Amino acid sequence: PTPQANGDHTGKKIIRPTWAESAQKCKLQITARLYNIMHKKKTNLAVSVDVHSCREVKKIIEAVGLHVCIVKTHIDIIEDFVPEFTKELQDLAEKYNFLIFEDRKFADIGNTVQSQYSRGIYKISDWADIVNVHPLPGKGVISGLQQVVKDKGLKRGCLLVAEMSSAGNLITKDYTQASLRLAEADEHKDFVMGFVCQSRLTEDPSMIHMVPGVKLSSGGDNLGQQYTTPEEAVIKRGADIIIVGRGITEADNLKEEAERYQKAGYEAYLKTVS
Amino acid sequence: PTPQANGDHTGKKIIRPTWAESAQKCKLQITARLYNIMHKKKTNLAVSVDVHSCREVKKIIEAVGLHVCIVKTHIDIIEDFVPEFTKELQDLAEKYNFLIFEDRKFADIGNTVQSQYSRGIYKISDWADIVNVHPLPGKGVISGLQQVVKDKGLKRGCLLVAEMSSAGNLITKDYTQASLRLAEADEHKDFVMGFVCQSRLTEDPSMIHMVPGVKLSSGGDNLGQQYTTPEEAVIKRGADIIIVGRGITEADNLKEEAERYQKAGYEAYLKTVS
Repeated sequence: PTPQANGDHTGKKIIRPTWAESAQKCKLQITARLYNIMHKKKTNLAVSVDVHSCREVKKIIEAVGLHVCIVKTHIDIIEDFVPEFTKELQDLAEKYNFLIFEDRKFADIGNTVQSQYSRGIYKISDWADIVNVHPLPGKGVISGLQQVVKDKGLKRGCLLVAEMSSAGNLITKDYTQASLRLAEADEHKDFVMGFVCQSRLTEDPSMIHMVPGVKLSSGGDNLGQQYTTPEEAVIKRGADIIIVGRGITEADNLKEEAERYQKAGYEAYLKTVS
Repeated sequence: PTPQANGDHTGKKIIRPTWAESAQKCKLQITARLYNIMHKKKTNLAVSVDVHSCREVKKIIEAVGLHVCIVKTHIDIIEDFVPEFTKELQDLAEKYNFLIFEDRKFADIGNTVQSQYSRGIYKISDWADIVNVHPLPGKGVISGLQQVVKDKGLKRGCLLVAEMSSAGNLITKDYTQASLRLAEADEHKDFVMGFVCQSRLTEDPSMIHMVPGVKLSSGGDNLGQQYTTPEEAVIKRGADIIIVGRGITEADNLKEEAERYQKAGYEAYLKTVS
């Protein structure tokens, strides 16, 4: 089937297996774990905790933890980061049963991203269940990270950024297609778990589609971000996971807002199961 | 004139103004500073210090400092990083008269890269004269950083990664052309200083072309990196700056090797001045 690239995703209704079925069908352990969490907690909500202190990150997670399957971090924007914080993140992930997704968008040659993933202050490979890469540098950006995971015997997953939500981005249909081919390449099957995208790229339930830029009220920001609603993301764009940032983190009541998004995302999912 | 994209750069000889002339002609203060350093020190060599301790970084800089115009860092691969280290880097930059280029390859939406540039543990905007971005997310990735520089009143420069050296990268001629247009856009003229690329994209001396993956013995690594020689980089590809990593940092005698590259790069430059 021809994948639907940027802008070409309206009208066609997505039909998908249930999360419980998908957990059985998918090949990668981390993906099965994610589907099982989604099934158990009835949520396809990922929250971006784009705040600047460990305390704020923890406060948000304590408020939204019951309602999410993934917490997405930008570890490098936290002012008071200390290595022990990653242990606290992992403890919270266990307490509330979610996966940690470090939104690093690795985008360098293999030799460099290998160091950026496993070394330095952050040692991302030690604590992030999921990371993402821009496939722009070619397959080395994936192989470089995958070698770390293999050498350390870790259970990790990698998402390819196949489409972006920002205005005037340079991603073309050919680029998205090339991302799909890299994701499906046999040599990456032990590591690649799906996409960060704006539309459904494949029906294979082994490939998780995460759609960022989701907000109950649509619109944008003043730096080119463009939002989509949970219902549109799940039904029209085929998102398995909706990624919500400021829509939740800037709300007065974090927990209530997370529940609203959880409900919106889950009801949209129910409309799409076969 | 039609720019020459990937692979289309053989045969045509580059003719350029001298560095002293270029320093007069260019519009951005940081670019003029760079040309003046190149002219004074007779070098177009940038060294990548891709090592994992503050001590090793400083050791390399002390050995090569006299021979380079730029030191390129990956701050996030240093295991024992402490905030004070960036002050030491700046002191070394003053002692040896070079610019610091943090090879961060920002590649997210404007709102996110703004935080990644100015906040977190690294506070890159405080100490890196130059950073680079992938233009992939669209102009927001540039505007986001530029707003930081404007708000803080800093003299900084930004390079767009317009071409890559890694095998199978997804950059097309159209992508490179779009990068060129973003670089030349009037709204970015106070910030964009050129490209990380593999070929000459414009004759405008305001736009610095930095070519990575340079090594005296050509070849590659096992993760898709492909090397080019200093002479080829400067004469055939039109590099203003050659970026050398493992070719120098893995040598037995760092200083001697840096001198070899400086000489090779400078002699190639002399063959191209009008």
